[in-house]
Amino acid sequence: MATCSALRGSFETNDEDAEQIRALTRYPDGSVKLRNPNIELMDQDILYHLALGSESHDLVEMFGDVKFVCMGGTPKRMEDFAHYIMQEIGYKIPTGTKLMDISQYSYRYCLYKVGPVLSVSHGMGPSSISILLHEIIKLMYHAKCKDPIFFRIGTCGGIGIEGGTVVISDNALDGLQDNNYAVATLGKLVKRPARLDKKLVRELQALAHSDDPYDTVTGTTMCTSDFYEGQGRLDGAFCEYTEADKMAFLKNLKEKHNVTNIEMEIIPFAALTHHAGIRAAVVCVALLDRLRGDQVATPKEVMNEWQLRPQILIARYIKKYLQNKGRISFDGHGSIAVKSPRRFKLVQQESQSIE
Amino acid sequence: MATCSALRGSFETNDEDAEQIRALTRYPDGSVKLRNPNIELMDQDILYHLALGSESHDLVEMFGDVKFVCMGGTPKRMEDFAHYIMQEIGYKIPTGTKLMDISQYSYRYCLYKVGPVLSVSHGMGPSSISILLHEIIKLMYHAKCKDPIFFRIGTCGGIGIEGGTVVISDNALDGLQDNNYAVATLGKLVKRPARLDKKLVRELQALAHSDDPYDTVTGTTMCTSDFYEGQGRLDGAFCEYTEADKMAFLKNLKEKHNVTNIEMEIIPFAALTHHAGIRAAVVCVALLDRLRGDQVATPKEVMNEWQLRPQILIARYIKKYLQNKGRISFDGHGSIAVKSPRRFKLVQQESQSIE
Repeated sequence: MATCSALRGSFETNDEDAEQIRALTRYPDGSVKLRNPNIELMDQDILYHLALGSESHDLVEMFGDVKFVCMGGTPKRMEDFAHYIMQEIGYKIPTGTKLMDISQYSYRYCLYKVGPVLSVSHGMGPSSISILLHEIIKLMYHAKCKDPIFFRIGTCGGIGIEGGTVVISDNALDGLQDNNYAVATLGKLVKRPARLDKKLVRELQALAHSDDPYDTVTGTTMCTSDFYEGQGRLDGAFCEYTEADKMAFLKNLKEKHNVTNIEMEIIPFAALTHHAGIRAAVVCVALLDRLRGDQVATPKEVMNEWQLRPQILIARYIKKYLQNKGRISFDGHGSIAVKSPRRFKLVQQESQSIE
Repeated sequence: MATCSALRGSFETNDEDAEQIRALTRYPDGSVKLRNPNIELMDQDILYHLALGSESHDLVEMFGDVKFVCMGGTPKRMEDFAHYIMQEIGYKIPTGTKLMDISQYSYRYCLYKVGPVLSVSHGMGPSSISILLHEIIKLMYHAKCKDPIFFRIGTCGGIGIEGGTVVISDNALDGLQDNNYAVATLGKLVKRPARLDKKLVRELQALAHSDDPYDTVTGTTMCTSDFYEGQGRLDGAFCEYTEADKMAFLKNLKEKHNVTNIEMEIIPFAALTHHAGIRAAVVCVALLDRLRGDQVATPKEVMNEWQLRPQILIARYIKKYLQNKGRISFDGHGSIAVKSPRRFKLVQQESQSIE
């Protein structure tokens, strides 16, 4: 029932321990099992917003080797990440091919695959990422992926940290300081704990280099459903509070709730991955310090460089994982093989100057 | 305070009458006034998610003539709508030009302008459309637009109606059957009534032709923040209820709350436009009857034809409005002028076959 106690219900209500979750979400070989008995009884399962289907596509053949799912807001950032991670892990594709957006005809999300890595956009806000998560988790099941790890690579507003700082989230709160994801389901509010994998947080923090020219910190992240009033901005179409109210709110978040940054997706991301028994982490770069203003005034080039920082950290994790598994090989064949980068560039320039 | 009474608070709390709203949201000449005193004091206002700014762009010059803002989920649909409405209102652009996505470098929303009509994508879910609405309402203010009218052209699930039926919304409810938009603001839940313009609903319903080969109905629309569990689907990554629970829920929505269709944006759309004193309507086509299933199995070509139906209704409204104002003229010059469509096509084909 959508009673008050449900709305402000206790954290423990839906809480399950790790072993309980594993039994519900994994087959003995580690492949993903769904907490929905209906799917295996269906003739076909159309992943509508990804433009994929369980009977139209051989999802095991296409996606069976996926280990990492990396997601971020815009199609552009995730296309860039696909190319970046390809270079970082030395993944080769055949001569005459290029990466393509597998979900281009969904017109909703972009989806790139680079060997064991998926790079997918999730749009803005809790609802958009929740649709994606349902379908990506089902994709993991259909493809029989084993113990996949999910990352969100995002941008955020910081509280009391410099623009450009990287934040690894170890806790998530909503706009009312609750750390559950509440979904009105059949007219009743169902809450699920928004939990992040503490070990993954530590592993990621350990990959921050002391000589990185920026800070990488761990902290609590607030998730809002609204960008303007929901984040206490003064510059929305409406504003019914003062700058003093806003500052008191942000300072209280920092001092009382240890909030380091604010974004719009971590609550469903943490809750749905936790419920599915999937290890997951959120790494965001702060585009500004909200204690100093609301509008982002940093030049585009600087911002573009900042947005690479969470990608760099995730790439370090993926590389290290693949190296440990002996799965990074640099002797691939078939992709464009560059013998001399200088000469390669000269040839390209020369051919471009010929009409 | 985020008390229980606020969460289930009465509709009247923030209610204002039409005259009160008009005084707060319009200058004497009918141009849009913001309910935020901060904006006019700012050096510049960057509409970050639209890649526009009040000082970098001459927004009055660019957008001052806008009367209609049409929004829908995907960039593709809104690009198509831009071309369709251009044809419908006979809007001419100079030879050698084509429509472009004004917000392409935001990588968030697409934005097309066709004379007095903006065609813009809003992504999926309440948060995504709320960011857009804040920025589009500010754009109306900066551009000094007069009494703009907003339309959402969407898709939805129907309850007890045929796939392909067009639904004009006259009422909006959330997943707990509340007709307010609740935003956690500075740690407190602020609710605003999600109201639609009844006159606009009647005007649109009157434009449905008796010889349209489909039904156009008026009804209550439920807005959910989740596509799978939030809409009682059995085919998400998780499902903790039975088909009987789902059917009882949907039938109750229909019989007790008169719900005709379900989508994911109407609550913020209705609440934010109402708060801004902007006349607004939502017209969606049902892609399926949820009483018969969860997955959309209709062929792509049929679905594409269905998605045109809300566009046709809105185009009728816009055309009628412009005709009444004497603003449709078919004597424009400068665009590609086709004398004979058959010969035009032949010339195109011929030139394509020459390397």
